[in-house]
Amino acid sequence: MAGTPATPLLKDELDIVIPTIRNLDFLEMWRPFFQQYHLIIVQDGDPSKTIRVPDGFDYELYNRNDINRILGPKASCISFKDSACRCFGYLVSKKKYIYTIDDDCFVAKDPSGKDINALEQHIKNLLAPSTPFFFNTLYDPYRDGADFVRGYPFSLREGVPTAVSHGLWLNIPDYDAPTQLVKPRERNTRYVDAVMTIPKGTLFPMCGMNLGFNRELIGPAMYFGLMGDGQPIGRYDDMWAGWCTKIICDHMGLGIKTGLPYIWHSKASNPFVNLKKEYKGIYWQEELIPFFQSVILPKECTTVQKCYIELSKQVRAKLGKVDEYFIKLADAMVTWIEAWDELNPSGASAEVRNGPAK
Amino acid sequence: MAGTPATPLLKDELDIVIPTIRNLDFLEMWRPFFQQYHLIIVQDGDPSKTIRVPDGFDYELYNRNDINRILGPKASCISFKDSACRCFGYLVSKKKYIYTIDDDCFVAKDPSGKDINALEQHIKNLLAPSTPFFFNTLYDPYRDGADFVRGYPFSLREGVPTAVSHGLWLNIPDYDAPTQLVKPRERNTRYVDAVMTIPKGTLFPMCGMNLGFNRELIGPAMYFGLMGDGQPIGRYDDMWAGWCTKIICDHMGLGIKTGLPYIWHSKASNPFVNLKKEYKGIYWQEELIPFFQSVILPKECTTVQKCYIELSKQVRAKLGKVDEYFIKLADAMVTWIEAWDELNPSGASAEVRNGPAK
Repeated sequence: MAGTPATPLLKDELDIVIPTIRNLDFLEMWRPFFQQYHLIIVQDGDPSKTIRVPDGFDYELYNRNDINRILGPKASCISFKDSACRCFGYLVSKKKYIYTIDDDCFVAKDPSGKDINALEQHIKNLLAPSTPFFFNTLYDPYRDGADFVRGYPFSLREGVPTAVSHGLWLNIPDYDAPTQLVKPRERNTRYVDAVMTIPKGTLFPMCGMNLGFNRELIGPAMYFGLMGDGQPIGRYDDMWAGWCTKIICDHMGLGIKTGLPYIWHSKASNPFVNLKKEYKGIYWQEELIPFFQSVILPKECTTVQKCYIELSKQVRAKLGKVDEYFIKLADAMVTWIEAWDELNPSGASAEVRNGPAK
Repeated sequence: MAGTPATPLLKDELDIVIPTIRNLDFLEMWRPFFQQYHLIIVQDGDPSKTIRVPDGFDYELYNRNDINRILGPKASCISFKDSACRCFGYLVSKKKYIYTIDDDCFVAKDPSGKDINALEQHIKNLLAPSTPFFFNTLYDPYRDGADFVRGYPFSLREGVPTAVSHGLWLNIPDYDAPTQLVKPRERNTRYVDAVMTIPKGTLFPMCGMNLGFNRELIGPAMYFGLMGDGQPIGRYDDMWAGWCTKIICDHMGLGIKTGLPYIWHSKASNPFVNLKKEYKGIYWQEELIPFFQSVILPKECTTVQKCYIELSKQVRAKLGKVDEYFIKLADAMVTWIEAWDELNPSGASAEVRNGPAK
């Protein structure tokens, strides 16, 4: 499967969402893999600035003025001056699948020196089932050359639909500011040739840098929260989305995979700036994790939207005590769902066929 | 860390346990890595047969007569004509750590072509903490070049003691008989350069082929059950031990790692013979997994022995209904703990310092 097939997988069913504040020269390197897909570019920061997109790409671009115009008062739920604004792209997409990537991410090479088609691997991950109920020691049992090992219950071998494919990063690892400060020279050089399902009941830190998901299955949970301008916190947008998404996937019987594909993350962000954005998150996180670990969604929550509204209530009730920010965030979660339903009126994110998992 | 250091790690604190029915020529290949350690060989089958051990190895060997002599009536808990007999070696060891390996396992090579010192990697796994409460997307955060990623709660970064290191297999994968029959030519050629903690609350299929553990922390849970001669089932010895061990590790706040090291598994066992041994297990397994997923150990279970006795009661009460075999197995579980305490009277497996996890 080297290079790009004549018609790439899911060509008309997937949008690539890119949040940016600069010219998208990084797309040159991705041209062989991205050019046949449609891009949704969410321009952050000053809307009067012109973002240059290399020739030959099919794209739509939204700046802050567009967001305000399209969402009206509901635009308040979309962050400004933070890559959390990317979730606006999920809202306006009409496709079944989303791939989102940061503009400082380049094509990585596999150990044989071949360019990695990250998007193709995400699509493979999303199209194969997940196995959240029991751990398979040979990792993804659906990959070529692998299977379920001895002792894996046969009743679980059909797996469940995959909602999210979380890809990783070579070179600059996704560390928090304290770790960046302590290990300024650490680079991720280890290519781990594995994809695996994150088990049910286990939370993980979802990074938005290199992420694919099934928008029909889980889109309304992929809200990146209130970050950046006017907010007390940054760099927790993808974490927030990941925790909410994992809880809801566990409830709905959907799977989340992590591992391949790698992208090449070119440049570490400034750890001092990051520390300023993160420090409340580092503190709050210690309360957020036990909160998410204890969330129980009632049976009546049979759609992602219903789950998300229920979650917003629990955020308000339990995290509102931690800081008033979470009251504002709970409001924004509701606004986000209202905006989602307004822009996606067909009920594209309908009830999962089998209902929520037991 | 190429080759073997002058004094290998934990030289006087680790026993290598090998169950066998044949001459141990396979040790020649392991000589550079095993020769400085003490071996405990558990001879299965006909005790009148002489097992040849290559010169230069330091070992003790037990055949069925020895087992009967040492354990008396309690010898009934040790399986005969099944590699489950290996757990007798865990019982008579006086060391803190155990490494157990099958005699059809050879030294594998890493992708650079270097021989893998499997034992050294197991020791590294066992000496570094585990992280069962939250998933780290860059795998083992304690490895060189890795760390906890952004969004990983700081309060969880100390980890917990590692009780088990589960290694994998190149060449012949550890498949059940149906999978062997369907995919007779499948070979595992994928070297996944990762070690990871199996999350709390998630069960996994533990294979006894290439396994290290901390005997002081978890030894009494490493009972390989009643298999083989006179029993209705085989090839579920390690699975049984793994499920019991995982439940108890979760309760006690201990970690289980899987991944590296690989050994080279040379020869697939006969799938038709395996099917005969396994078929009841394949059926029962569908009841065993929900059982283990629902086991709750009370707070009063503050030692592995207490946990194991409690587990035996639940096995009797709940699985006894599935088949009377499980009544016999529950009895054997109790006998095993009695034998353990008799041979390990010092309370080597004392209460974990911090008590069981919440």
